[in-house]
Amino acid sequence: MKTESQHLRLIASCPGRVGILARVATFIAGKGANITAANQYEDTRSGTFFMRYGFELPGGSGEIESFREDFASVAEEFQMDWRIQEVNYRQRVVLLVSKFDHCLAYLLHRWKVGDLKIDIPCVISNHETLRDLVDWYGIPYHFVPVPKEPAAKQAAFKETARLIEEAVPDAIVLARYMQIFPSWLCSKFRHRVINIHHSFLPSFVGAKPYHQAEERGVKLIGATCHYVTEDLDQGPIIEQDVVRVRHSDTAEEMMRRGKDVENTVLSRGLRYHLEGRVIVHGNKTILFND
Amino acid sequence: MKTESQHLRLIASCPGRVGILARVATFIAGKGANITAANQYEDTRSGTFFMRYGFELPGGSGEIESFREDFASVAEEFQMDWRIQEVNYRQRVVLLVSKFDHCLAYLLHRWKVGDLKIDIPCVISNHETLRDLVDWYGIPYHFVPVPKEPAAKQAAFKETARLIEEAVPDAIVLARYMQIFPSWLCSKFRHRVINIHHSFLPSFVGAKPYHQAEERGVKLIGATCHYVTEDLDQGPIIEQDVVRVRHSDTAEEMMRRGKDVENTVLSRGLRYHLEGRVIVHGNKTILFND
Amino acid sequence: MKTESQHLRLIASCPGRVGILARVATFIAGKGANITAANQYEDTRSGTFFMRYGFELPGGSGEIESFREDFASVAEEFQMDWRIQEVNYRQRVVLLVSKFDHCLAYLLHRWKVGDLKIDIPCVISNHETLRDLVDWYGIPYHFVPVPKEPAAKQAAFKETARLIEEAVPDAIVLARYMQIFPSWLCSKFRHRVINIHHSFLPSFVGAKPYHQAEERGVKLIGATCHYVTEDLDQGPIIEQDVVRVRHSDTAEEMMRRGKDVENTVLSRGLRYHLEGRVIVHGNKTILFND
Amino acid sequence: MKTESQHLRLIASCPGRVGILARVATFIAGKGANITAANQYEDTRSGTFFMRYGFELPGGSGEIESFREDFASVAEEFQMDWRIQEVNYRQRVVLLVSKFDHCLAYLLHRWKVGDLKIDIPCVISNHETLRDLVDWYGIPYHFVPVPKEPAAKQAAFKETARLIEEAVPDAIVLARYMQIFPSWLCSKFRHRVINIHHSFLPSFVGAKPYHQAEERGVKLIGATCHYVTEDLDQGPIIEQDVVRVRHSDTAEEMMRRGKDVENTVLSRGLRYHLEGRVIVHGNKTILFND
Repeated sequence: MKTESQHLRLIASCPGRVGILARVATFIAGKGANITAANQYEDTRSGTFFMRYGFELPGGSGEIESFREDFASVAEEFQMDWRIQEVNYRQRVVLLVSKFDHCLAYLLHRWKVGDLKIDIPCVISNHETLRDLVDWYGIPYHFVPVPKEPAAKQAAFKETARLIEEAVPDAIVLARYMQIFPSWLCSKFRHRVINIHHSFLPSFVGAKPYHQAEERGVKLIGATCHYVTEDLDQGPIIEQDVVRVRHSDTAEEMMRRGKDVENTVLSRGLRYHLEGRVIVHGNKTILFND
Repeated sequence: MKTESQHLRLIASCPGRVGILARVATFIAGKGANITAANQYEDTRSGTFFMRYGFELPGGSGEIESFREDFASVAEEFQMDWRIQEVNYRQRVVLLVSKFDHCLAYLLHRWKVGDLKIDIPCVISNHETLRDLVDWYGIPYHFVPVPKEPAAKQAAFKETARLIEEAVPDAIVLARYMQIFPSWLCSKFRHRVINIHHSFLPSFVGAKPYHQAEERGVKLIGATCHYVTEDLDQGPIIEQDVVRVRHSDTAEEMMRRGKDVENTVLSRGLRYHLEGRVIVHGNKTILFND
Repeated sequence: MKTESQHLRLIASCPGRVGILARVATFIAGKGANITAANQYEDTRSGTFFMRYGFELPGGSGEIESFREDFASVAEEFQMDWRIQEVNYRQRVVLLVSKFDHCLAYLLHRWKVGDLKIDIPCVISNHETLRDLVDWYGIPYHFVPVPKEPAAKQAAFKETARLIEEAVPDAIVLARYMQIFPSWLCSKFRHRVINIHHSFLPSFVGAKPYHQAEERGVKLIGATCHYVTEDLDQGPIIEQDVVRVRHSDTAEEMMRRGKDVENTVLSRGLRYHLEGRVIVHGNKTILFND
Repeated sequence: MKTESQHLRLIASCPGRVGILARVATFIAGKGANITAANQYEDTRSGTFFMRYGFELPGGSGEIESFREDFASVAEEFQMDWRIQEVNYRQRVVLLVSKFDHCLAYLLHRWKVGDLKIDIPCVISNHETLRDLVDWYGIPYHFVPVPKEPAAKQAAFKETARLIEEAVPDAIVLARYMQIFPSWLCSKFRHRVINIHHSFLPSFVGAKPYHQAEERGVKLIGATCHYVTEDLDQGPIIEQDVVRVRHSDTAEEMMRRGKDVENTVLSRGLRYHLEGRVIVHGNKTILFND
């Protein structure tokens, strides 16, 4: 008989000192749990520790809460910034889009065939363009136009924030959402808003990066998945990749060619986020990927 | 005052069970050591645990031996296959070559400028071709011709083995050494002999892989760094990479183009080996690379 | 006033000799056409010439036929294997699928948003699984089951061939179609049937390549787009690419990860075919890609 | 009996119009020459044609001069910017270096083993550091220190220019030469000075790009080979590539890791230049690479 167990993940960071791993591992072993994966890294410049442990906690789902409560005192002792994920919990991901549909279509397809084991409570858009596609997948679509007039714009973002909050999301993906989030919105969902920028940052910040790339005559174009912060396209980078272009490629052809790299970079970045592989450290990320 | 400490690495594998990490981490913490990096992975099919810990052991170099002795009983308890590396110890790497010099020239250059912090006790070759290059770097060069006649061939490999043993190597690199090691030689230095094969294995096993690649009309060629076993080009793979070729590339041009990928793949593979990032598991490798 | 013109492409191969390019270019210039792109390559081993010219022929679409007729005598003079494509003609691509939908979903999406300027007369499948998806795009879906019993199997392939012929296709894409075409079917549509194989050929020919890859412990997995011939997975390669995997990736995770590279490799290969960039030469391809 | 012939390459650009290719190909055929490779591209925005033809001109080397003279009138007719290369002529490449030796060591090694079929008339450096290495290869080494004081600096660059001119170079490679060429020096050898910049431009222009990369937290670092112009790191890009880095990589480790990509990008870029595959167009390059 296979006894019941809970597959959990602990992700944490704290000031470095002797005995952290021993304390945490002993705590986990004391609960009878088998550690199946572990990553630890110390940033020697700042003296910060980063950890990610996967483990099987014996018992029913009721054990999780008591594990969390008991661990809280360990965490306090080491001044940890921490979270515990249930590996089989379907995380909730809100998607924001404008008119380009390739990232949206990619994520919805991967979700539908079960490659992306998430729930998508809703899609929010400042346009009506992609409603049909989203309808086909049976997902609620919220149209929140974002006018240029400041007060109306603020109201639109408030409504956007309300819809996001209502969805209780683990991640908010700007899947080619062409509006700039105000500072307060970035803060509100800090380290949960993931953007895909269609260039190899820090090259070609801002609008029309493919046109900038074509203008500069680069031989590779790229895409960058990053957390959104107050500074446009300056947030902590999660993942990047590039693809080769030719002298004969116009900006339009680069756009077409870039879609694949945008999709793979965004989906890898989102997956790293959901799997607790990314820990933000200042304006950079620790990425545990093995 | 900065107190003295020893930077060590523990690399181990053992049958999986609850409490391994706790026991090991507690042991390390009990020695007052700070764990700066950790990787752990459980192969669920075989139920095997693999670990790699980096830590700073306080005290002089004399502490290392007592650490080793004390840890032996922990290791025994968990039936571990283990080793402890001193991070600042300059590992000893013996190079074997035939006539092609690109891998040799690459490794020697990286060694000379300090990128590869190793000692190279000697270079062994079945040809005299590369003696001048090796002389320039001030490294002993042993010429051990390998005749076709079976008894003479065996004698040549015995001499090769003797020279290798004398060098007390942590790694033996076949840097385009064009002779096939007999089984007993593979066994003697098991998991220490690293070969670079000039194809993306398992494609193009054996002789003249670039000619095979040209014949088949592939669009990418590659290189594979692997541990040598009794089965030609079948050993556990450490690292691989590829590079694009064109329809107009002859086998000769592929050879030229392939040199770069051979060099980077070999040097990455060797580095992973030296840094204790590779653990052999059956005919595959666990690669801790973050 | 912009005068009307026809954007054409001439793709040809012939035995090499002095004056081919001069003859062809003079013929084209004699028609008042502006050559906007040209590639030429001579395979010196076989003495074969391969050419691809893009040009703007002045006049209405009626000019194309007379160009073709007049060029036929030039072609005959040089014993050319040739074709002329109308660049703005929407080529017809028949898709064959089984149960995996990622390649199909990818191609249909790119087609719908106009990135792939083709007509898709129908989708043929040996399963009913993907009918809904295809219906949504408004494309006819033909279910042709392929039984194991030899006579019934032959009948199924005859029906498949009939449906393909009816569609008058410029390309037939096996978008993860899990049946092996009989020889006569390969011959019937020679150099028009494009397959995506989910490995970096010639590694992992045949069934379950991701499982083979996981078994062998490779560090990169790949995909290969090739023309289908009588020999399974041995046809001329059009395009290949790879993606990195980790020791912790199961065959299932490789399958998920491999989908992106399958999609990009297939779509690049198909595009090269449609744009007349690929010329088959023995069991290899000439690929004009700049 | 194989008759003598000259392997030549014509590289040219001119305003687009009907009949260019016909005129050029007819001229070449009229000389009895067999065209073995051809690339042509029209930039439709500027209406400019770019061509590259490889051909075998029958007869001895004396035929080349008369070919050049006769072609001059064709070139004038089409207002061509043109050059004719002898494929087997060993082009002359002057190398400039400072203290980092990896690019120098790479190019010298490839030259010595015959992979790079060039002559290296001399190496010029603002330091004495690399004299020994260059001596070993038997190549003259000129030490030209570049003081900070403006007049002395100008004098140093004049001496540098004199040494370059004396070498009659086809290419001048800044193989990690850490001085900025004054405008007049850039102009003097326009489109012949090739620099390797250790970042993926336009990211991280200027000093210490690896430190900038580490600071920004990018997941890939790169290298860019470009022609030097008056604007620092802004010249036409010839070739670029990238390599993955980890969160644990310091700027120093990135430097080590970046050396391989610098070497391959520089050597590919230099090779494209020498093979006449690159044509500068405004601040971009046409790259004929198949």
